[in-house]
Amino acid sequence: MGLFSKDIQSMNDLFEHQLKDIYYAENQIVKALPEMIEKATAPQLAEGLRSHLAETKQHVSRLEQVFQMLGKEPQGVDCPAIDGIIDEAEDVSGEVEDKNVLDAAIIAAAQAVEHYEMTRYGTLVAWARQLGRDDCASILEQTLNEEKAADEKLTKLALGGINQQAA
Amino acid sequence: MGLFSKDIQSMNDLFEHQLKDIYYAENQIVKALPEMIEKATAPQLAEGLRSHLAETKQHVSRLEQVFQMLGKEPQGVDCPAIDGIIDEAEDVSGEVEDKNVLDAAIIAAAQAVEHYEMTRYGTLVAWARQLGRDDCASILEQTLNEEKAADEKLTKLALGGINQQAA
Repeated sequence: MGLFSKDIQSMNDLFEHQLKDIYYAENQIVKALPEMIEKATAPQLAEGLRSHLAETKQHVSRLEQVFQMLGKEPQGVDCPAIDGIIDEAEDVSGEVEDKNVLDAAIIAAAQAVEHYEMTRYGTLVAWARQLGRDDCASILEQTLNEEKAADEKLTKLALGGINQQAA
Repeated sequence: MGLFSKDIQSMNDLFEHQLKDIYYAENQIVKALPEMIEKATAPQLAEGLRSHLAETKQHVSRLEQVFQMLGKEPQGVDCPAIDGIIDEAEDVSGEVEDKNVLDAAIIAAAQAVEHYEMTRYGTLVAWARQLGRDDCASILEQTLNEEKAADEKLTKLALGGINQQAA
């Protein structure tokens, strides 16, 4: 973004900026998930992450659809937030030896990713409605609901045994 | 953390690491909130952020209490996630001129912070319980509930008019 001008003038600009932010984030998540899947030990965790990787690719496509509906080229902007969340996940998981403890760390990292996405999609849905773009809102809301469901599945995995074994 | 050894061996280590992470994060939030308060235009947004700053200072104290209960010195570890979330908030708000659009951007940024905290405290509460530290869990849960309430207040502000004026 421009260093010498204020580039966000309207809610439309802000919406578009946020869309580019989450587009970059989803693409980074597509790149990061395979390593988490590889490190996961519990089969139900690996399976859950694998199915979320497939969903995430779908989220990227939905964002491209929203860009298209706005007459814009799909484009990302740097998103230091998701970079930080992913870096931290990689740092911590690199420090863990025990397989069960590592699974607990992976679940926590994946939930941090989900929460980032939930807050961004929640905002995007609200802004799309305010801008009278219910068509975009309903597409973004499908993804929001899938992120929430993924987070709930991870909570169930955490409470349902994986961490118990590690504790 | 050590570069040549795996420093997290047990769930206790992972819990302590996560505690240090959120301790660093809460302290960064205490530093970042005054600028967001200063930039906010809508009085109810500025007031909400001011009261959350007071709560955040209380969250820092509660974390110090939990460290003490574990017989540890309060200590932070680098948390690239919160650094990224705060950097992004500052970058975006620096790009916005219109006061109402800026308020919308501030709400979104504050909600990203809340969601990061919600996921970390959610994890910490679950891990404390698994480790048989219900005493720590109940302190951490007070903060978790305040973070959730802060997020809900921000959603109400966003839906209740501030962004409407901007749209």
